[in-house]
Amino acid sequence: MKAVRFQDTLHLETNYPNPQPGYGEALIRISRAGICNTDLELIRGYKGFRGVLGHEFAGVVEGGERDGQRVVGEINIACGTCSLCNDGIPSQCENRATLGINHKDGIFAEYATLPVENLHLIPDVITDEQAVFIEPLAASLQMLHLTHISPHDRVIVIGAGKLGLLTAQVAALTGCDLTVIGRHSQQHSLLAGWSIPSKFPGDLEARSADLVIDCTGTAEGFADALELVRSRGTIHLKSTYYGLLGVDLTRIVVDEIKVETSRCGPFDAAIRLLARGLIDVDSLVDAHYPLEKALQAFEHAGRKGSLKVILDIA
Amino acid sequence: MKAVRFQDTLHLETNYPNPQPGYGEALIRISRAGICNTDLELIRGYKGFRGVLGHEFAGVVEGGERDGQRVVGEINIACGTCSLCNDGIPSQCENRATLGINHKDGIFAEYATLPVENLHLIPDVITDEQAVFIEPLAASLQMLHLTHISPHDRVIVIGAGKLGLLTAQVAALTGCDLTVIGRHSQQHSLLAGWSIPSKFPGDLEARSADLVIDCTGTAEGFADALELVRSRGTIHLKSTYYGLLGVDLTRIVVDEIKVETSRCGPFDAAIRLLARGLIDVDSLVDAHYPLEKALQAFEHAGRKGSLKVILDIA
Repeated sequence: MKAVRFQDTLHLETNYPNPQPGYGEALIRISRAGICNTDLELIRGYKGFRGVLGHEFAGVVEGGERDGQRVVGEINIACGTCSLCNDGIPSQCENRATLGINHKDGIFAEYATLPVENLHLIPDVITDEQAVFIEPLAASLQMLHLTHISPHDRVIVIGAGKLGLLTAQVAALTGCDLTVIGRHSQQHSLLAGWSIPSKFPGDLEARSADLVIDCTGTAEGFADALELVRSRGTIHLKSTYYGLLGVDLTRIVVDEIKVETSRCGPFDAAIRLLARGLIDVDSLVDAHYPLEKALQAFEHAGRKGSLKVILDIA
Repeated sequence: MKAVRFQDTLHLETNYPNPQPGYGEALIRISRAGICNTDLELIRGYKGFRGVLGHEFAGVVEGGERDGQRVVGEINIACGTCSLCNDGIPSQCENRATLGINHKDGIFAEYATLPVENLHLIPDVITDEQAVFIEPLAASLQMLHLTHISPHDRVIVIGAGKLGLLTAQVAALTGCDLTVIGRHSQQHSLLAGWSIPSKFPGDLEARSADLVIDCTGTAEGFADALELVRSRGTIHLKSTYYGLLGVDLTRIVVDEIKVETSRCGPFDAAIRLLARGLIDVDSLVDAHYPLEKALQAFEHAGRKGSLKVILDIA
């Protein structure tokens, strides 16, 4: 089959072996896939992963008890026996593999496999293209699992890329007093269309927010978050960071600031919100490429300010 | 009056002007005072403070409505009008002065002044020497205000100095499964006397704690905390840190770790626990010095592994 494989460099394999579903796994024919910033980091060496990339997808099960179902899938493959699995937190399983990220071939390919228990049915009202956003939307929703947002809160989202724009829409559903910081005027237009106020970096008052959500994954974003949060406020880190950051922990302690974080989230909730039309993902699609042009698609996804690039696979 | 003043270097002044109480302030004759690690940091240049040092004390009010009362005092002098004061968080007042730390002469002196509203009566059952610990004990208790500790939690306190030993006793009151990490065997003896398990650094399993409380204020302490906390666990920073620390924020995000912090805390609660004999502070006293020997007292307090050094003033 065709597959986009990372091994020192990224290439399109045309004769990669079809995956064989293991015990409890389903074989999935991939229809659409999305390129995530994590994919871009992986090809820069993050986690030392080698194999087929990709973890945001919609597809159709071939064979087995769920034959023919249109599905998305959770990306963490848990052992089911470690203390975190026993605590009901399989997404943090100590022995987990992660689809297209760690010890498990991903979905930039014609076929992939996943445990049946990881699969979620896509309701008819959600298109394949929209379904590609279920995984990143679930990750944005995980913020609400681990950080409480009150409708009284003054909230700032830093970063208006793919992740920031999803996270801003999620935060806005709480009714909080939200402002998004973006560098590009087309991000501001998009936000204005959703009636979400936005500003350019530097245009907000220091220490003015109860909660600052950093979606940039950069040292600048974190420094801005520390500047904008009030004493006794919260910084939520919604993105990963490259390398070590120099952090002024004393400021955090003296001002009694909390730092909260989140990673993968609830697919069910993401599906419910998409099905009800409460999150606009259609506006977040920048371009479509066929699988054969995956390298061009990666180049497009890596450009500054680009939004979601979709691979059309079947 | 005699006073211990920091101005480029530390000296004992013998003819420092007596403080004059301002509107709403009481004049306090200081009887006992404690040297805190913050005092040691201030003489290394922290916050650029110049003036009379000291903020842990017991004393007697002279004059005014509370004449003759034996008191301790909260160290933050709040404006009463900023948004944090209005939110009921005067300890985080945007315009605050802080006793012996920031814009307000401290209590290593025969007399000091504080707003009457900052004062708390010392019950007869608490000695002056014990009362010196009310301020740092309140700071340890602030941890329980800002971090929830469940009796189910596996908790590790890193650091068994003055602050760590108070914080460990506070954590132990929750009934949690507590272990303290200390470098010195006399710390282990003290903890054993309180039936609190302790270990040397390196003797605990990685990712084994629900909550790690760092009382070291060092890069090593923070690194150990990150090593010991489980996924979805909490690190509580109970100390300040010198300069910027290189922090692996990606580990924090991927493992969905929370970082919580606390500073000054509830004097009332500290007084209740001391009055009920639930916290042993007598064992934390290393030495007494008269005010005249304050420089020797500072030298003693700065030695590795030393506990509380008390100045006997009146």
